Amino acid sequence: MTSADSTPSTPSTPAVPTSVRGVSVVAGEELTGTAGTLRARAAATGAEIGPEFGLLDLDQLDRAVAAAADAAATYRATTPAERSALLTAMAEEIEADRDDLVACAVAESGLPEGRIAGEVGRTTGQLRLFAGVAASGDHLGVRLDPALPERTPLPRADLRQRWVPLGPVAVFGASNFPLAFSTAGGDTASALAAGCPVVVKGHPAHPGTGELVARAVARAVARVGLPAGTFSFVLGAGNEFGAALVADPRIKAVGFTGSRAGGLALVDVARARREPIPVYAEMSSVNPVVVLPGALARQDPAALAQAFVGSLTLGSGQFCTNPGLALVPAGEAGDAFVAEAGRRIADATGQRMLTPGIAEAYARGVADLAGADGVEQVATGSEGGEGAPAPALSVADWQRAAHAAEQEVFGASGVVVRWSDLDELLTILRGVEGQLTATVHCDVEDAQDAAQARALLPVLEDRAGRILFNGWPTGVEVGHAMVHGGPFPATSDSRTTSVGSLAVERFQRPVCYQDVPAGLLPAAVADDNPWGLTRRVDGVLELGGRA
Amino acid sequence: MTSADSTPSTPSTPAVPTSVRGVSVVAGEELTGTAGTLRARAAATGAEIGPEFGLLDLDQLDRAVAAAADAAATYRATTPAERSALLTAMAEEIEADRDDLVACAVAESGLPEGRIAGEVGRTTGQLRLFAGVAASGDHLGVRLDPALPERTPLPRADLRQRWVPLGPVAVFGASNFPLAFSTAGGDTASALAAGCPVVVKGHPAHPGTGELVARAVARAVARVGLPAGTFSFVLGAGNEFGAALVADPRIKAVGFTGSRAGGLALVDVARARREPIPVYAEMSSVNPVVVLPGALARQDPAALAQAFVGSLTLGSGQFCTNPGLALVPAGEAGDAFVAEAGRRIADATGQRMLTPGIAEAYARGVADLAGADGVEQVATGSEGGEGAPAPALSVADWQRAAHAAEQEVFGASGVVVRWSDLDELLTILRGVEGQLTATVHCDVEDAQDAAQARALLPVLEDRAGRILFNGWPTGVEVGHAMVHGGPFPATSDSRTTSVGSLAVERFQRPVCYQDVPAGLLPAAVADDNPWGLTRRVDGVLELGGRA
Repeated sequence: MTSADSTPSTPSTPAVPTSVRGVSVVAGEELTGTAGTLRARAAATGAEIGPEFGLLDLDQLDRAVAAAADAAATYRATTPAERSALLTAMAEEIEADRDDLVACAVAESGLPEGRIAGEVGRTTGQLRLFAGVAASGDHLGVRLDPALPERTPLPRADLRQRWVPLGPVAVFGASNFPLAFSTAGGDTASALAAGCPVVVKGHPAHPGTGELVARAVARAVARVGLPAGTFSFVLGAGNEFGAALVADPRIKAVGFTGSRAGGLALVDVARARREPIPVYAEMSSVNPVVVLPGALARQDPAALAQAFVGSLTLGSGQFCTNPGLALVPAGEAGDAFVAEAGRRIADATGQRMLTPGIAEAYARGVADLAGADGVEQVATGSEGGEGAPAPALSVADWQRAAHAAEQEVFGASGVVVRWSDLDELLTILRGVEGQLTATVHCDVEDAQDAAQARALLPVLEDRAGRILFNGWPTGVEVGHAMVHGGPFPATSDSRTTSVGSLAVERFQRPVCYQDVPAGLLPAAVADDNPWGLTRRVDGVLELGGRA
Repeated sequence: MTSADSTPSTPSTPAVPTSVRGVSVVAGEELTGTAGTLRARAAATGAEIGPEFGLLDLDQLDRAVAAAADAAATYRATTPAERSALLTAMAEEIEADRDDLVACAVAESGLPEGRIAGEVGRTTGQLRLFAGVAASGDHLGVRLDPALPERTPLPRADLRQRWVPLGPVAVFGASNFPLAFSTAGGDTASALAAGCPVVVKGHPAHPGTGELVARAVARAVARVGLPAGTFSFVLGAGNEFGAALVADPRIKAVGFTGSRAGGLALVDVARARREPIPVYAEMSSVNPVVVLPGALARQDPAALAQAFVGSLTLGSGQFCTNPGLALVPAGEAGDAFVAEAGRRIADATGQRMLTPGIAEAYARGVADLAGADGVEQVATGSEGGEGAPAPALSVADWQRAAHAAEQEVFGASGVVVRWSDLDELLTILRGVEGQLTATVHCDVEDAQDAAQARALLPVLEDRAGRILFNGWPTGVEVGHAMVHGGPFPATSDSRTTSVGSLAVERFQRPVCYQDVPAGLLPAAVADDNPWGLTRRVDGVLELGGRA
């Protein structure tokens, strides 16, 4: 995610590996859809590449969902070791196809080979992280309140709690991470760790990559002896196909990474169901970067501006965590920051974006921003050819242009807002929409910076899922402490994360067992604790064998 | 909750204690509203009792919300010990007013004194449970992934995660639990434990009880030196007043216990906000009871039927967990169950319900059910006077009457459905709406019963938040392992519980701190762990001093 990719894409059209067949994978079966066709396009040239994909019709989609529903009972009953084995096998099968996968994803996405190779590692690392989560069983959240038959005035029943999987999950991957946030990405890995079968709606911007990953996952499912319906990958036409998947009563939750409009459309479908279901949509964020005076004084303002532009234009700015809004102090040092950022943007050349549609939306967004009242466009770079629009930088007056300034323009477009004192800065931040990240640049040795940072922290906690200091948000570690989430519209559900081990909790709900006979109790809550789980007994945490 | 209350209410009008003043409590200040008036009504006679309450207008409501928003920054920064002290002080202040509270709640609700006295104990016990939760700090969910500066290819930043409070919470209490699910009930206690200020919308069925509790809470807030805005109690007119509270952008979550229509109305308001917020609405459940053949064979079917009717008519059936749907085997033993249940219902006399509106809704629900295609009303009891409608029992053919049979009729109305084999039983249960509870009566020594129960369990897990065996659902223990929740429409969010210590997690979201300087880190995630918290370090749980 943080690898440099400053070399413009070469204009020659790359090839999709011949191993790509143009199929969906429905419960282990390679299926050629009959509802129209789709060709992949090389992001670098726009040329059609690879085989023709047959798109599934709604009956074929139904087969995938039915298979997931059928597999759910078996899959939910798997042991921690069995789930862990599946996730590990998925990582291994993906690694076995690494060369073809890298070639295919580079061709379809136009992203540099180093970046894609890194993303394969990120994806398999993520699967192994969730293999560890599943193996520990900590996410089962077991609590035991033993019976108190002698208690007065009323005895206490035997009560046991564990978390159960919600059921089949629909996953909608992202265009900008064809591997790590897609077919076998974080949503799929965490849903499987939670015990939920997964139906992935393949992304049309990288169908070949999706197919190769899906076939690897299907091999893993077969290898560990689970029902084939545990995983399906479905390619279909348009929004109706995705909406039908979310509307299906057998689907019990949705993971989504993409645009605000796309996420909200799925939220609406999910809410209109007879049984509404949770939608975890990671959508829209401008990731404010607050620059405090001491940070400008300590560093050359130009150095900070250079680093800002570097993060803003990294990978054509096509990251959810792209820093699209910088809040700098009014005055000389702030002016120097703006001037240098403008120079850097003016010197930058656009890189080809992931799809023509994304490039067009970017150009529209930049134009709308530049035309908004209270916004002055201070610099644009050069176009890098068709589909590679120019980076852009604007300065906005928050009083007049707050709404325009906080709209995400997906790509390398940044807005600088000046603030004159801490009160104004806090007012701006209290009013800003929910964000994935918020960054503070400060000199902690400077007493004024430290005091201002201390005042900022609770406000930033309220507005963002991740707060970082003296760095840049465009790098999301996959670990236990990560939060890739935040208040609306960063996500549709601020109480979760879509990256990191905590993500498993999205696909579960708690169930209490009262006076259930010992012979019928699920293993997770059995007296002899056969899985060696960490459990809360009468309110007190007791570490398990694997913790 | 399970105390017997078979004596009909006496017809004399009870008095509200003179300590009730007819006020709301806004940030510690007793406020007489100017937007109309309300009088309490004695549930036993329908007579107006107690002082006139002045209802707040929207400007007065705004004062409560503004005070909560102002208090939020201070209250979120409290230590575990400080939050715990508040909750303990609330329990003590409520106990200090116990006599007046019991008298007032008995007068307003018509519930027997023994039941209300028990509910006071339940309420203070619940507050002390959450005092323990807050003191432990386990709900802060701290995770530390230390920096790995030497890691290749990329170093790892220092990452720390904790859960932060969502912000001010609006609480809508229940008519049927004027204490335990109301002003200082489970929603309020868990929101305060999470670090969220609370604005309670007072229930018009028990305004005096609400006022007395609110004044006790305000005393507790003052005693422990917290901002008065940490808690407010607002009495206002009609649905608009509640909708305005939920629509206020400073409110960040909602707790609700009540009807499906009421809950869904608040869900709609919360979704239409610029920033949608979570609504935890506990709404509607018929709490199916499955009777297996062995249970009927082991016991006299009549004994089981008697126990069923006892649970169904307990407290006029005015429990969320009232068993409104019994699934019994077709055949002789099942017929004997139905016949005896019918006889018991026919012998029963209605008790005065909580409000005239609830009694009318019950009567309408019973009539609609009796008139539905595929439903046969098999018995009704006697009316117990005005506002005390007769208990009723129907038999329904699931094929024709599933929709009618699964509609909750709040009160002592039950439906029996017969099933002929396990497949049919499983089909019925798979199709039933989400439930708070599901009960199985079985003879575990009977091999067929045990096998059937084993097949039922995963289906019941999917449909209910609590599964109980050989008992009755109308008793909800307040502990660590309880789940009082379930899939829609039992609640609007199946991933939580509104009773028990897990409820605290509803009012929080995770935040990650990346490379935040040590001097600025919140105490919860500081290296020296000043609060002695249990923490997950690099994925491994380490017990804290208090765990």
